[in-house]
Amino acid sequence: MIQSFNSSLLENAVSELSKLPGIGRKTALRLALHLLRRDENEALALGESIISMRKNICYCSRCHNISEQDICPICGDSRRDASTVCVVENVKDVITIESTHQHNGLYHVLGGVISPLDGISPSDLEIDSLIKRVAEENIEEVILALSPTIEGDTTNFYIYRKLSELPVRVTMLARGLSIGNELEYTDELTLGKSIQNRVLFSDSFPKR
Amino acid sequence: MIQSFNSSLLENAVSELSKLPGIGRKTALRLALHLLRRDENEALALGESIISMRKNICYCSRCHNISEQDICPICGDSRRDASTVCVVENVKDVITIESTHQHNGLYHVLGGVISPLDGISPSDLEIDSLIKRVAEENIEEVILALSPTIEGDTTNFYIYRKLSELPVRVTMLARGLSIGNELEYTDELTLGKSIQNRVLFSDSFPKR
Repeated sequence: MIQSFNSSLLENAVSELSKLPGIGRKTALRLALHLLRRDENEALALGESIISMRKNICYCSRCHNISEQDICPICGDSRRDASTVCVVENVKDVITIESTHQHNGLYHVLGGVISPLDGISPSDLEIDSLIKRVAEENIEEVILALSPTIEGDTTNFYIYRKLSELPVRVTMLARGLSIGNELEYTDELTLGKSIQNRVLFSDSFPKR
Repeated sequence: MIQSFNSSLLENAVSELSKLPGIGRKTALRLALHLLRRDENEALALGESIISMRKNICYCSRCHNISEQDICPICGDSRRDASTVCVVENVKDVITIESTHQHNGLYHVLGGVISPLDGISPSDLEIDSLIKRVAEENIEEVILALSPTIEGDTTNFYIYRKLSELPVRVTMLARGLSIGNELEYTDELTLGKSIQNRVLFSDSFPKR
């Protein structure tokens, strides 16, 4: 049921808010009324932060991560290891991997994974630019960090084939038990992989 | 864990979005990245609609509903019955009651209910202005439409006492079975009320 708000400004804000993913019309109304109740500066800061973010954030011409300049802070950081490139699906995965503090190399954001059902083919992704980077830059290792799904694995294999003639080591993220999970609740595929890919116990000690 | 986004603009938008009720940092990041992916106009329209709403919406000086002018469209509508005033807790309740199309009178928004635990006393609410309206305007009926909670009932009773010396009929919303609910799942208090307040079956026929 479309409710009448007696205010086109409120109506407009609710309709824009409800375009956001996971936010329906009822939640949008709740958010708009919240913004009306709170201090005016809070609502203005929200509106301006969205406008300023959208206007000024572009994509890094090298790794396609979000950036405020032509080259993102990660690509521009000379302390990072430019010989290792981690291939991820999207910007969010860069943030997630950065939060582990285990990767000190650069990134390459594909913009998705190959998915014929969704109409996403290799040419829709930043795969050609990855191959070009590996051919032209001094890259020694490409770490494939896509999701362990059929689409992710298809994309992994496609990139692996494309890179096979270049002198670069192609690695992928380990698959195995999730830390903190009980063994009996781990699915058979993952448990099987973790047996195949077992590691020397002594290698699991913290390295100094 | 605080994640680093490598962009103060993204960081800023995420932090503003996560101030909204029910939106945590993870959801805020998802919304911000969604806005970055979509057409620029969509994000700008959202930002501007929030700013424009907050800057231009004020409160009706008569009923305290939201309004774009000094007097809201409901109070200003001469086709509405100015002798009946429906007392509600907040702006959302006005929208909810309007969507039933069963009330053709005016409203009075209290801005909350009396709740000593939350530190809300009668003086924090628009109760005095309601009494003043009833004394000065030609109001014949005040419909108390607060939530059927202890706080709502306390407020109902407080208003009833305040109005008792004025020549006005004070009514309240009926309490009884929810339409569509099974009888056996109705709580005893509500079922008891619905027996006390039973109505003539012939009165339930649609009126022509």
